[in-house]
Amino acid sequence: MKEFELIKHFFSEQVIKRKDVVLGIGDDCAIVSPAERQNIAITTDTLVAGVHFPHETSARAIGHKSIAVNLSDLAAMGAEPSWISLAITMPEVDLKWIEDFCLGVFELCEYYNVQLIGGDTTQGPLSITVTAQGLVPINKHLTRSGAKAGDWIYVTGEVGDAALALKHILHEVNVAPEYRESVQNSLDFPTPRILAGQALRGYASAAIDLSDGIISDLGHLCSASKVGANIVLDHLPISKALQATVGMEKAFEMALTGGDDYELLFTVSEDNKVGIETALANSSNAITCIGQINRSEKITTTLNRKAVAIKTKSFEHFSSTKE
Amino acid sequence: MKEFELIKHFFSEQVIKRKDVVLGIGDDCAIVSPAERQNIAITTDTLVAGVHFPHETSARAIGHKSIAVNLSDLAAMGAEPSWISLAITMPEVDLKWIEDFCLGVFELCEYYNVQLIGGDTTQGPLSITVTAQGLVPINKHLTRSGAKAGDWIYVTGEVGDAALALKHILHEVNVAPEYRESVQNSLDFPTPRILAGQALRGYASAAIDLSDGIISDLGHLCSASKVGANIVLDHLPISKALQATVGMEKAFEMALTGGDDYELLFTVSEDNKVGIETALANSSNAITCIGQINRSEKITTTLNRKAVAIKTKSFEHFSSTKE
Repeated sequence: MKEFELIKHFFSEQVIKRKDVVLGIGDDCAIVSPAERQNIAITTDTLVAGVHFPHETSARAIGHKSIAVNLSDLAAMGAEPSWISLAITMPEVDLKWIEDFCLGVFELCEYYNVQLIGGDTTQGPLSITVTAQGLVPINKHLTRSGAKAGDWIYVTGEVGDAALALKHILHEVNVAPEYRESVQNSLDFPTPRILAGQALRGYASAAIDLSDGIISDLGHLCSASKVGANIVLDHLPISKALQATVGMEKAFEMALTGGDDYELLFTVSEDNKVGIETALANSSNAITCIGQINRSEKITTTLNRKAVAIKTKSFEHFSSTKE
Repeated sequence: MKEFELIKHFFSEQVIKRKDVVLGIGDDCAIVSPAERQNIAITTDTLVAGVHFPHETSARAIGHKSIAVNLSDLAAMGAEPSWISLAITMPEVDLKWIEDFCLGVFELCEYYNVQLIGGDTTQGPLSITVTAQGLVPINKHLTRSGAKAGDWIYVTGEVGDAALALKHILHEVNVAPEYRESVQNSLDFPTPRILAGQALRGYASAAIDLSDGIISDLGHLCSASKVGANIVLDHLPISKALQATVGMEKAFEMALTGGDDYELLFTVSEDNKVGIETALANSSNAITCIGQINRSEKITTTLNRKAVAIKTKSFEHFSSTKE
């Protein structure tokens, strides 16, 4: 099958048609017409088989995840997702695989009203690069750099389950059957916290999405904001599955250093603490206060109000173990 | 070296700072602020080592080409390039290679006032995916679909030299020493026809960039416009190098079916023929009228006013020969 037919057949079949897309897939470029008084947030992420997901991951999960990780970056800026470009490199044209991959891509795009506007299909080892764009009112985007000493640190959802799923796949732990599906879904089908991100506009002083683990990503936020932080381990939102499988001490470590959570981590001033909790109380996104920003320029942890040491090695693509 | 340091060190060192970039590299997303009354053209292309460029291609040429092929798509829409996202997958961190690659990327970006606003660095077999964006006044973009019977077909520059360079590398032909540098540059350092593309706005009825060869790309244009075309072989702009190396007959074939030219092919109505030739006379982009659109819905060729058959197999990624 020729490249052009391939693209035409599978990627042009999306249901959603946004009014701000003047020209979609099929020409040299797409043309979009952004609304006035909106800036555009742009992010690009590549997923490589065997590095960012296990080789045995289902095509649908790969499709979902390649979109979700990019939407998660938009969420961290408080943006509303709008347009996606998708470049896929695959070893061979496997029609069933592509169909399942597109299912994962399109069900997420449709849910968030995001239109696929273009892309490229090439032959080579499996990898997917997505560029996602979103709209955010002028001067209302969130950044990593606004956290101040005294601000409270929050995360959405629960942390560590994606890392647990990976350990289960690698036979390093054995997740009990009753937890397996939800744990596996945390890794394969992460939910980008789009609505939470938009709700944070006007409240959060800084935000980042958790792709590489709390220690690493909070580290980026602290570095950009020139502050430090203390994390209260007792408050970490850890699932029953994680605690039951590895015990509390290991659960803390995995919650802090495990990658792939795609929850939002954000900071809120004392004055906005009630506001943010109220704003998010009616949404489906639970949030948990896990610590506080300080002037130390380092990250510390406490348990039962006592300082404890933690293993701080987080996920890094170039230092991670790969086959 | 950690991924984050890698990105920070090499990709944040660009000189250019566009006023419409609110937030560049370093956060979860970039934020841009498009001018009013402008639409945005968006394109994505992936280059895979061994498929889109020979493995022995210099890092600087790969950097140049990965940007140039995307800017060429913007040119074909009549857009003015603005922002680039670059995702690179590489087998290992080779600092000299990255430095040379960035040189190729940045010298082209600086020339066209394009700012690198983000990207991703991952480990795997070498490939580069670029998403390029550009601005085009509302309702002024060019498309593939506006050609009408009777319109004249033009190309910018010369065609076939990039295919010649590839054949020389593969030892299928031997380009004479006096031509080698210019022929090799056609393949490694294509010039996106940005100014020509913008000059076409208001004149051209349809446009496309030549990435896969005239037959293939004119075929896409005709298909989108629901028309046919005749190409006058006598008029094809063929370099002395190509003619001298392979002879006239083979030169026609390579000009028609060779990929990687990145010239613009466009159509102009009889009424706009003088206008476009005047508009482009003062630019450095030579243009040549190579044929005419008709109602046949197929592509034919003539030589000395007589119909001739041509080999029409063009470059297709999934059917090309690769190691």
